[in-house]
Amino acid sequence: MTFDRLKDFIREAMTGLGLPEADAMTVATLMAEADLQGSDGHGVSRLPQYARRIKAGGFNVRPNITVVHEHASTALLNGDNGMGHLVMKRAAEIAIEKARTTGIAWVNSQYSNHAGPASLYASMPLKHDMIGLYFAVGNANHLPPWGGLDMLLSTNPIAAAIPAGDEKPIILDMATTVAAYGKVKSKALRGETMPEGWMIDRAGKPLTDPKRADEGMLLPLGGMEAGYKGYGLAMIIGLLAGTLGGAAMGRDVIDFNHDDDSVTHTGQAVAAINIAAFGDVAIFKASVDALVRDFRNSERMPGVERIFVPGERSHATRATRMRDSIPIPDALMRGLDQVADDLGMQRLA
Amino acid sequence: MTFDRLKDFIREAMTGLGLPEADAMTVATLMAEADLQGSDGHGVSRLPQYARRIKAGGFNVRPNITVVHEHASTALLNGDNGMGHLVMKRAAEIAIEKARTTGIAWVNSQYSNHAGPASLYASMPLKHDMIGLYFAVGNANHLPPWGGLDMLLSTNPIAAAIPAGDEKPIILDMATTVAAYGKVKSKALRGETMPEGWMIDRAGKPLTDPKRADEGMLLPLGGMEAGYKGYGLAMIIGLLAGTLGGAAMGRDVIDFNHDDDSVTHTGQAVAAINIAAFGDVAIFKASVDALVRDFRNSERMPGVERIFVPGERSHATRATRMRDSIPIPDALMRGLDQVADDLGMQRLA
Repeated sequence: MTFDRLKDFIREAMTGLGLPEADAMTVATLMAEADLQGSDGHGVSRLPQYARRIKAGGFNVRPNITVVHEHASTALLNGDNGMGHLVMKRAAEIAIEKARTTGIAWVNSQYSNHAGPASLYASMPLKHDMIGLYFAVGNANHLPPWGGLDMLLSTNPIAAAIPAGDEKPIILDMATTVAAYGKVKSKALRGETMPEGWMIDRAGKPLTDPKRADEGMLLPLGGMEAGYKGYGLAMIIGLLAGTLGGAAMGRDVIDFNHDDDSVTHTGQAVAAINIAAFGDVAIFKASVDALVRDFRNSERMPGVERIFVPGERSHATRATRMRDSIPIPDALMRGLDQVADDLGMQRLA
Repeated sequence: MTFDRLKDFIREAMTGLGLPEADAMTVATLMAEADLQGSDGHGVSRLPQYARRIKAGGFNVRPNITVVHEHASTALLNGDNGMGHLVMKRAAEIAIEKARTTGIAWVNSQYSNHAGPASLYASMPLKHDMIGLYFAVGNANHLPPWGGLDMLLSTNPIAAAIPAGDEKPIILDMATTVAAYGKVKSKALRGETMPEGWMIDRAGKPLTDPKRADEGMLLPLGGMEAGYKGYGLAMIIGLLAGTLGGAAMGRDVIDFNHDDDSVTHTGQAVAAINIAAFGDVAIFKASVDALVRDFRNSERMPGVERIFVPGERSHATRATRMRDSIPIPDALMRGLDQVADDLGMQRLA
């Protein structure tokens, strides 16, 4: 599947679902970008769920996204329950514009929704020679507080994007759990068991059967040994992305995988840091290049073929998929056919 | 040992070592605060090392700390190789002042030095109803890139402090490794072995003898299963705290535990986020209180007595030590006696 064909399919579906043409194009471009870079759990695979939710009235297809509070370097956006892609693209644009003059800016959202992979928004400041940061409250709680049993936290992701010179930008995008919940679902679909360390059951014992995922909880980053650190990170990210903007956090988070119509009141935050405010941009980029090369050329452990910096695999996937094609698994293609049939549009393939 | 007596001892030592009276008081207060809150590896235990370094000419005792670059919401401070406590206190003050009007501010340092526990600086914005963030390049590389063998990263810590209402503030302060290097040193001193998962040797096998620490490397947060995440965090923090401010990162980091006279060119970053820029401060604090209570009251796993939020143990330690006393281990007391004798001042006890 080519990037352009995939994007066009999503755009047509979004228009059919009621989004204005320009918004449909924005969402389609970001969703197809997610697939292009290998964020398969956050791209077109979400389209059937989005379509279901829109039909159930869970998303506002014609949101009036407004700035609720604004200062020289901050803003709070009310997403009016529109698709998160629209809200967070706007948030990143505002952050970039403000950081141009003040050096840094930070924009929170409220009444936003699932926006796809965190890296998309952290990467938006890159072409303006800015560093991007992104924090989000995930759309389902799979994590209790450390030592607890009540699911009060999501896998709250953090992303950071750092411009380089000749090298590709460094892009970190990680859930604060050992494994993202999407990886558990993939294991279940493939009929495989999970390694010990991804999940535990309510007695604290390792849970390795992904079909029993509902009986257990994800382990925060750090696992049994140091999971209190991942727990702490997930909580702080939730406070920054959710509570700070008056959005849902903790018990107020809606499990949008099992609920198509409640307003999720999702919160995210994006920051842009203007490198020029701290010195010469070319010198900064040269330093990043040198660092990447030092890392790549490090002596390797036995059996290690290559050392990667964060984002390098995504850059490679992007190049391969742009040249060849974006793979669409059969089960997903059937779901997309259903969406197309429902909307009376041409199937993807 | 009372807080006041300890602070006074450090202040006198710092004055004896050549710091101006006001600077000696600043450093002493922050170092004694570190001990008070239980950050034992970053308080008075560092005094013998600091004294040695000052005598070797490794710290500038009368630095001219200057603002190199400044925008409405950012600044870069040149610490003139002064003690890190002085540089980062100034950095936090500037960030707070700027965030008052612009909503957020971010200040980097260059030519700074070890500044004690990250939480001290992340906490400074709290009393101004601001959130604090802090990032630092550690002062010794103990971590290779994921899959590599060359020590190119430190345990680069991240700290975040979030104001609450009736509850104590939430304060996260963590190294991006499974265990901080100080914990390894403590195990060696006590003749204990380390649990598997803290360190590996150069063949990738678990290393549990802390006396052989020099033969191995710390595992990044996430351990064998997901250590690439901790590695990614450590790298991003190093880029934000070091590279962004033109400070040392990667191969340029000086191991200040084994080098008393080279300029470390340490970089840190501190940010202040003004909660009032995003909405009503009282509502924010009430939300944080509610969240803390939900977490605390979560159903617990078998064998768990209490659920903690980040910072809660430090708050408790602070209260206990303020009421009773700050414990000084014998070996440390002998080191402090030596400092006192060298400077011709009264011993601590």
